[in-house]
Amino acid sequence: MSGATRHDEAQAAGPPARGRHRGAPACELVTLADIEEAAARLAGVCTRTPLVPSVPDASGLQIKAESLQPIGTFKLRGAYNAIARLPHERRARGVVTHSSGNHAQAVAYTAARLGIPAVLVVPHTAPAVKVEACQRLGAEIVYVEPSLEARIETAERLASAHGFTLVPPFDDPGVIAGQGTIGLEIVRQAPDVEVVLVPVGGGGLISGVAAAVKQLLPQTKVIGVEPELAADARDSLRAGRPVGWSVEQTGRTIADALRVPRLGTLTFAHIAEYVDDIVTVGEEEIRAAMRHLALHARLVAEPAGAVAAAAHLFRRDALPAAPRQVAVLSGGNVDPELLSQVLA
Amino acid sequence: MSGATRHDEAQAAGPPARGRHRGAPACELVTLADIEEAAARLAGVCTRTPLVPSVPDASGLQIKAESLQPIGTFKLRGAYNAIARLPHERRARGVVTHSSGNHAQAVAYTAARLGIPAVLVVPHTAPAVKVEACQRLGAEIVYVEPSLEARIETAERLASAHGFTLVPPFDDPGVIAGQGTIGLEIVRQAPDVEVVLVPVGGGGLISGVAAAVKQLLPQTKVIGVEPELAADARDSLRAGRPVGWSVEQTGRTIADALRVPRLGTLTFAHIAEYVDDIVTVGEEEIRAAMRHLALHARLVAEPAGAVAAAAHLFRRDALPAAPRQVAVLSGGNVDPELLSQVLA
Repeated sequence: MSGATRHDEAQAAGPPARGRHRGAPACELVTLADIEEAAARLAGVCTRTPLVPSVPDASGLQIKAESLQPIGTFKLRGAYNAIARLPHERRARGVVTHSSGNHAQAVAYTAARLGIPAVLVVPHTAPAVKVEACQRLGAEIVYVEPSLEARIETAERLASAHGFTLVPPFDDPGVIAGQGTIGLEIVRQAPDVEVVLVPVGGGGLISGVAAAVKQLLPQTKVIGVEPELAADARDSLRAGRPVGWSVEQTGRTIADALRVPRLGTLTFAHIAEYVDDIVTVGEEEIRAAMRHLALHARLVAEPAGAVAAAAHLFRRDALPAAPRQVAVLSGGNVDPELLSQVLA
Repeated sequence: MSGATRHDEAQAAGPPARGRHRGAPACELVTLADIEEAAARLAGVCTRTPLVPSVPDASGLQIKAESLQPIGTFKLRGAYNAIARLPHERRARGVVTHSSGNHAQAVAYTAARLGIPAVLVVPHTAPAVKVEACQRLGAEIVYVEPSLEARIETAERLASAHGFTLVPPFDDPGVIAGQGTIGLEIVRQAPDVEVVLVPVGGGGLISGVAAAVKQLLPQTKVIGVEPELAADARDSLRAGRPVGWSVEQTGRTIADALRVPRLGTLTFAHIAEYVDDIVTVGEEEIRAAMRHLALHARLVAEPAGAVAAAAHLFRRDALPAAPRQVAVLSGGNVDPELLSQVLA
């Protein structure tokens, strides 16, 4: 638990920024030791996902298939690590989150596995199929109005009233360290990797992956990938501070898991320190990448999960000219109708 | 190369049968040492595929995802092992096979990787897409009439004229030992597994898997799965000798990779010795299992690849009542139209 304490103190104390990019805010970044500790916690819980070649002759791109995690998304790594590292008494009181997507399912799965209560605050407009999946895992659902403010307020109220720990979807050192275990695995599975391509929504995934990869292989480029219709992280990296897009803007992309309108404070700091560039892909390119992954890597990707492969396939001119590239396929929880369409 | 020599001598000498089932023919079965040697040869070539849970709460079935091999099928393990274990001079002269399916691509991939010539004898009716995939890997194609006799005759003629080694698709100790590495991995990944479900076509896959699993975990049940429309292995196990079905009969199933009309001599011997039972599944059950695997394990399965999961999902009454089951997903090279249909 020393990792948690160190972070909490560090964030409170606010040490000076150390970002390479100007404007990186003052906060402590996750260390390799944090990520190694996370890897030890996740052993036996998360799958050490394979690198899957995406073409018949095995040259070029390899896919880090996080869609093969028990709940079909990398989110389990971060949620499990953030919860499992809590002191035992605090953990036993339970957890709450205000996400309604893959992170909610990750929290519900973790709580079921650890035998602790989980409360999920979701908008009453959330898809029934996702809510039911969480209920089957034993989570309690609290419905609220469909605004982020209502969800956060309710989650915080429940946390203080019942002693639950709030587990944020991305802007949290335990979550980031958990996602960083993907970077550790990539470095061990492909020590000669030259470029790592990672989807960016709230930034938790790329923060962890970049922290691991750049500390172990400083010459390897870590490139974020966003939909053109939700390019707030690209704008943030260029501006040197988190730049928000409106929910109306980001809501246009089919990559629903990447509609987060703004990076977090902590994730922006990691991106400013460790990420080399952020490129964007179009909606048709995302669909074509979903098809490519199904046919040439035999992997089911949700739209957000396909953006990194889409960058490799269609935006090669925006990437370093290096043959050994790994794309993180972040999740595979896709509407069957959509998948059927892209294959037809 | 001692493994090859031992087998060759053993097959020539014809030691007495040792099958548990009556009528097992006289031939030497692959040993655990053969399979361990194969595993060493395959390191760095084949993927150590993960066990993927097929339901959100991680209870019940786990999928051994051989669809994630570089060419999308387990066939690479057997072909690579059979070729890599040849003496160097013999190997350098090249290889030939008369398969036109996944095995042909496995031979072509292996030859490209080892830098040796490969000749594939295929019927002129073979799907262009599969032939082109082999050509891209550098294999030479020889077209013949669409009969098994013509293919075998041509392959044998080419082998003797040019010194090529014929690599059979399943009835070969090197091929069987290669497929057996899947069984080794299952035992290490899930040492408490109670039932292993394996598709049966020519029997190479189940021969290797059963040999590994039953020698390491004798209490674990190994169950073969066939389409009802191509149930020659079930009939063979019951009759105590290889029983052939007609090509017209087996041609009715959508599981094209399982249309092999008869087990081999060597594969029947392994099945008679090590396989506990063979169950069958219907065509609609195969389609439903393909859909289930895409949505709940995020894995693309070809029809043959889905039969073992189909048995778990729909023929539970025919299987041992044990919760810890692993189904081998043998391959993911599926027609996109068919996959689109089962998802719609």
